[in-house]
Amino acid sequence: MTVPPRRALTDEERVDWLRLSRTAQVGPITFYALLARYGSAKAAIQALPELAARAGRAKPAPVPPAGEIRREIERAERIGARYLAAHEPDYPEALAAIEDAPPVIVVGRNIGLFERPAVAIVGARNASLNGKKMAARLAAELGEAGFVVVSGLARGIDTEAHKAALAHGTMAVVAGGIDIVYPPENRDLQARIFDQHCIVAEAPLGTEPMARHFPRRNRIISGLTPGVVVVEAAKNSGSLITARMALEQGREVFAVPGSPLDPRAQGANGLIRDGATLTETADDVLRVLTSRPISRRRTAQEPLLLPEPAGEPEVEEARKVILEALSPVPVAVDELVRDCQVSLPVVLTILLELELAGRLERQAGQRVSLVP
Amino acid sequence: MTVPPRRALTDEERVDWLRLSRTAQVGPITFYALLARYGSAKAAIQALPELAARAGRAKPAPVPPAGEIRREIERAERIGARYLAAHEPDYPEALAAIEDAPPVIVVGRNIGLFERPAVAIVGARNASLNGKKMAARLAAELGEAGFVVVSGLARGIDTEAHKAALAHGTMAVVAGGIDIVYPPENRDLQARIFDQHCIVAEAPLGTEPMARHFPRRNRIISGLTPGVVVVEAAKNSGSLITARMALEQGREVFAVPGSPLDPRAQGANGLIRDGATLTETADDVLRVLTSRPISRRRTAQEPLLLPEPAGEPEVEEARKVILEALSPVPVAVDELVRDCQVSLPVVLTILLELELAGRLERQAGQRVSLVP
Repeated sequence: MTVPPRRALTDEERVDWLRLSRTAQVGPITFYALLARYGSAKAAIQALPELAARAGRAKPAPVPPAGEIRREIERAERIGARYLAAHEPDYPEALAAIEDAPPVIVVGRNIGLFERPAVAIVGARNASLNGKKMAARLAAELGEAGFVVVSGLARGIDTEAHKAALAHGTMAVVAGGIDIVYPPENRDLQARIFDQHCIVAEAPLGTEPMARHFPRRNRIISGLTPGVVVVEAAKNSGSLITARMALEQGREVFAVPGSPLDPRAQGANGLIRDGATLTETADDVLRVLTSRPISRRRTAQEPLLLPEPAGEPEVEEARKVILEALSPVPVAVDELVRDCQVSLPVVLTILLELELAGRLERQAGQRVSLVP
Repeated sequence: MTVPPRRALTDEERVDWLRLSRTAQVGPITFYALLARYGSAKAAIQALPELAARAGRAKPAPVPPAGEIRREIERAERIGARYLAAHEPDYPEALAAIEDAPPVIVVGRNIGLFERPAVAIVGARNASLNGKKMAARLAAELGEAGFVVVSGLARGIDTEAHKAALAHGTMAVVAGGIDIVYPPENRDLQARIFDQHCIVAEAPLGTEPMARHFPRRNRIISGLTPGVVVVEAAKNSGSLITARMALEQGREVFAVPGSPLDPRAQGANGLIRDGATLTETADDVLRVLTSRPISRRRTAQEPLLLPEPAGEPEVEEARKVILEALSPVPVAVDELVRDCQVSLPVVLTILLELELAGRLERQAGQRVSLVP
């Protein structure tokens, strides 16, 4: 039950990782579970039809063909981007530590930035002048202190943070393909970051960013850093999702306070109320980040990643019990194990099959629910 | 070692309380210690010359003559104000619970407000429009919830808080005499609060407010309430003194956050950083205040208030030891007791004498220092 050793993959292995990770119903957690159970992405791909069938799905989700993946990799290499798998040495260590780390990321170009300490600055698209000023000031000061500033290349706060960090190093995590310009007004900034700094994407080349991509993108912003600074954020904004993900990942959250009369301050104020570090200057951030290391992947989640294979007759018997215990209301995996009197490896095996059959959804906090 | 029972004083007793409490070198803590040791203000006044002489002062500070005090009381009664001593039933209970409660306050006119729950709202004189709006909104909402709004009648936040609370009940604590208009532009407001609500003063009638009066006044604002809301406060501002006093008194502190770019927000943000409740609406205040009662006078301080008289020979012996242990650097009374191997009542007696001789200063946290 240890984290796998880091090693460079062969080109063929990397193609298999991409094929498996881009199969519908194979989220990152399922990806790592399959990898642990079958030893390689290739073996997992071969096992998919049988796994899905056992959970009652006749026709499993299609796995992208190897040729298609190879052509994408060639196109990426032509523009100077490369693919990094989560077990490879060049993959950013902080990101590898989150339970749902992207199995493969596309990056360009200066991956040397991954070696430096990083901090994220995120906030409202419709930021106030004051908010933009704060973002720029914090980014410049944190850059001067040696930190790479990570953000999402969105309008408003993100843009200001990137710009102010250009002198020291900045990293943009995009929701679409690494080759897609978005938002259009940041064309030059995006090109400059790609050429001289670093852009990170999880989506295949050519993917147009869509609303549903952004929350998944946000987990990468927080995953790349030991701490996220929220400058202006309305209630229910994307920046709050990033902050929530940071907390789930065991990272620090910083928030810049603002007047309760400005709706753009309510999200950040709420974070402070919930325990985020009230942040007025870069020193407030540095004081915390220079004193607390990132914890490696939380051991509580490792069993989910590396289940022991269970004997088939035992699984057969337990399948009905587990299915009856599940419902559209999320339930903790631990609870299933306890209530159903079934061993953890067996429960995990059955959940894996159900997920691959499109009948199960994974939720935050190791909880699962049946797809209605 | 119990808190004295509350009872109305005779007119003569009240005159003695005022005479003793207005003697130089007799701060509130010394006042209560003298009262406990000699049983009455009258007896304490008679003992003052001897006490001061023992600590090496030939001529003790003069005690105001009874005739002067009686004339002041008559003038106060003509304008509708009255005097309340800390042991009297009408004296506000929350204020009586602080260790340095004013022995006597001058109040006018509606002392019925003391019976209602109260909350303080304080902040910057040079408040922003947003700050004033917040103060007014909070005052109106807290008033509607049944709370009397206490403040200091200063320009800016205080003024807005009082005005917005006029519909429900408000109390102003002034630094000078109750009959002195200050600041001049609040003449009408002050008159209206005096006539229909309540003004509280500790200073003698006719006292012009001076800078040194304000910190002492601030302890009354926080002392009257279970919680203080700070709306805008620069670093080192008077509102922060009120907040600090509230904490020392075991009261709640609430602070409205603001942009770090506005210097008027830095004090309030600092309070939040130090643990004050981040406050955006009156609900944030009500949630806390309706769930936590004010604690009565902290028992840790009661021994200081009611020392047992110690035998004179024992005191004589200990006097030199204690004097040598003291210095201009504040030291805790507990530490003196431990290090000098002298009993607490003896230490307290010697400290009392030194204070009356003008040779000792009392500091926060039951610490004392020698006057250089």
